[in-house]
Formats: sequence, structure tokens, C-alpha cells
Amino acid sequence: MRGWRTIGVIGGMGPAATVDFLGHLVRLAGATTDAEHPHVLVDSNPAVPDRNAARQRRGPSPGPVLAAMARGLVAGGAQVLAMPCNAAHGWAADIRAAVDAPLVDMIGAAVARAAQLGDQGVGLMAVDATLDARLYHEALASAGLAAIEPDRAAHRALVARVKAGDTGAGARAAARAIADALAGEGAGVIIMACTEVPLVLQAASVPLVDATRELALATLAAARLGTPG
Amino acid sequence: MRGWRTIGVIGGMGPAATVDFLGHLVRLAGATTDAEHPHVLVDSNPAVPDRNAARQRRGPSPGPVLAAMARGLVAGGAQVLAMPCNAAHGWAADIRAAVDAPLVDMIGAAVARAAQLGDQGVGLMAVDATLDARLYHEALASAGLAAIEPDRAAHRALVARVKAGDTGAGARAAARAIADALAGEGAGVIIMACTEVPLVLQAASVPLVDATRELALATLAAARLGTPG
Repeated sequence: MRGWRTIGVIGGMGPAATVDFLGHLVRLAGATTDAEHPHVLVDSNPAVPDRNAARQRRGPSPGPVLAAMARGLVAGGAQVLAMPCNAAHGWAADIRAAVDAPLVDMIGAAVARAAQLGDQGVGLMAVDATLDARLYHEALASAGLAAIEPDRAAHRALVARVKAGDTGAGARAAARAIADALAGEGAGVIIMACTEVPLVLQAASVPLVDATRELALATLAAARLGTPG
Repeated sequence: MRGWRTIGVIGGMGPAATVDFLGHLVRLAGATTDAEHPHVLVDSNPAVPDRNAARQRRGPSPGPVLAAMARGLVAGGAQVLAMPCNAAHGWAADIRAAVDAPLVDMIGAAVARAAQLGDQGVGLMAVDATLDARLYHEALASAGLAAIEPDRAAHRALVARVKAGDTGAGARAAARAIADALAGEGAGVIIMACTEVPLVLQAASVPLVDATRELALATLAAARLGTPG
């Protein structure tokens, strides 16, 4: 039996994306019985202030709520934290200031995978809050890669649609169109840098990096006992 | 915006089944934005003692661990508890003795749905611990329905396979064969009374009741504000 640190998930952004992340944790753990899985605590909180509104100074910062969720998870026993929401990583500093448990870097995990796949421009399927905070732009630049932004209005409409529960053919076609447009602008790889995107996109004309899946892999690596905490 | 009580999920039995349950909660909440979803706290704990071993007095009772999980969830803010594991409901009394928050009755929810679908014998796709504790037998008898047990060895093998992560064509065929055998023995409806079963079974020769989905519906009904707590 493998040993694990307890994983805490700062979730609910959105709830379906949190479930998608938890599914990756289950499938990627390499467990063959219930007992071989990691212990996972989840706070799927619908009351985290809107990340886009906060970034545009139209609403409160999500930082204090995210920090409170992290403290609650750590109080419950979480030793490694993961947050399946790219945009919320703009407030990662608030979480890291609140607790000693490490917060796994979703952005870094996705960029590391993109760097393995190509040395060209990297398309970003991301919301305004992620793009405006330049979370991926800076991480990609550090890896010698250039960011290519999506059609923001189209992406905004797509995410609203998925958050409303629409993962049908129309939403899938819209996601594919945004991806293929990024490829047309020179992206050699595309990061699905918004957790709603992989719910409606499985393939495009260039390789896709699923940031949610990369976060799950990085979280399991961080949680596995015998690795540095 | 709709108001909800905070839902606490006593999970990890197995982890994939907990994710399946959480997916139902998301899809059935009727939410069109993140904020309209209920707040959900999850403890997916791989260290709950084995239900089958406990029922056969080969291992410790899961009751104390389940009670501790319930206390932790309530301490974190949970107001309504749900446990997506049929067999573990054999220890529901330990949970109910530990906390004031109501534990939604998975068995009752599934039987109520089965009673709507037919007045014939009801096939049970359930593990030994559920069958030996007669959880469904007694609830069905109260509703004037008769339980029909599955091929226990075949069902045991199926569940072990799904818990090991195998949800492929072979596992699906095995699940379908158990269901169709129950129909052949006179079942007019079959309750998927083990949370691993709906991961590999979507249809059979008679209607199926998915106890996990029924639990999600009952949990959302119990959590909706304006309903009795």
C-alpha cells in the first residue's frame, strides 16, 4: 500500500470543474483498492467572489475567502493544497500567506507540460482574469515561450455556457472554433487554462494541455510520501 | 439565487463512486452560475474499514470512523450529510448518534423510486455487506416489494474490478450479465445498490434505479432552504 499526504481541494470554481479534477485524482492515483487512494478533503464553495469582476475592480477580492477555505481544509487535516481554477491563482499569495501547507502551482504544471510539447507560440484558452493577471504570460516567458490570447468575447461566452451546464454539441463546436483559431494564429500547442474548457474540448488541430489534469498529476506527486512536502 | 444548506459528503467508498455522486449533485442542482450551486464539503477517506469484512466479523467496524468523518464535516459547516455507499448505511446509526445534522437515507430514496417503477420483484445489485445486513430487503418489504439477490460471487468480482479502475467493455458486460440474470429470475426493476455499479451499467432488460443518483436528488431536496431540515 502506498502512502499519501492528505490532499485539500479549494474548489467550486466552478463545481463541475472541481468534479472533473477529482476524477483525474482518482484515475491517476494508480490505486487498485479503495485503501490505496489518497485521503482527499474538498471545499466546493459557491461563494468565492467572482475572479473576473475582482480583477476589473467591479467586485471584492476572492483572496480572503480562498484563504479561509485553505485554513479550514488544513484544520481538517489537509497537508497539500490544490485549487482547480486557473484565474484564482491570481490570489495564490493570499492562500500561501494563510497556511503552511503547500499550494500546488497549477500554472507552473501546465506550462511545464506545454514546454515539453513544443517550442512555438502557446495558445491560451483562458478567461479575462487569468489573461489580465498575466499568470500564463509570465510563466510562459520564463520558459522561453510566447502566449497567444484567444478571442476573449468568444471565450467568455463559452465559459458562461459551460458554467450554466451546457456541454452539448454547440458548446463543443464553440470550444473547438476558439482552439482552431489559436492554431491559425500560430499556436503550436494550446493550454486549456480555464477549468471549464476540458469539459467541452477533447482535441483540436494542435496538441492540447489540460491544466486540470496537469494539476492532478502535480498534486499526486506532491502528496506521495517520500517526496519533499 | 436559490439558497441551500451546506452539504457534507461522507465519501471514499470508493473514491470513484464519490466523484460520480458529486457529478450528480452538480448536474441536478439546477444552477446556471457557480453561485447558484450548494456549498459542498467532502471527506473522501480511504481509511474507512472494509464494510464486507466488518459484517463478516473479519475486521473492525467502520462505525467509529464514519462518525468521526461526520463530526469533522459538521465542524466544518455541513448541515445535511450524505454518504454515497450503500453498505455503509449499515452503520448509519453510529453517524446519527454522533451528530445532529440529518443523514439522508440512501436506501429509502432508492426504494421509493423502485416502488414508483413497478410492483414486482426488485433485483438488487449489491455487495454481501448490504445483503447480509438486509438493508434493502427490509426497506423493500415495508413497501410491499420482494428482494431478489444477485449472483454474489459474480457481483463481488465485478465490484473488485471497478474499484481497481476497470470500467472497460469486459466489466460492462459482466455488469449487464448480472442484471439480465436478475431480470430472468423475475425482477421487474433493478436497484443498482452498490455505488460501483452505475460506473459500468447504463441499461438492462428491465428499468434500473441508480441509488447514487436517487441519493443526490434526496440530498438536494433536503438541502434546499425552505424545506424542513
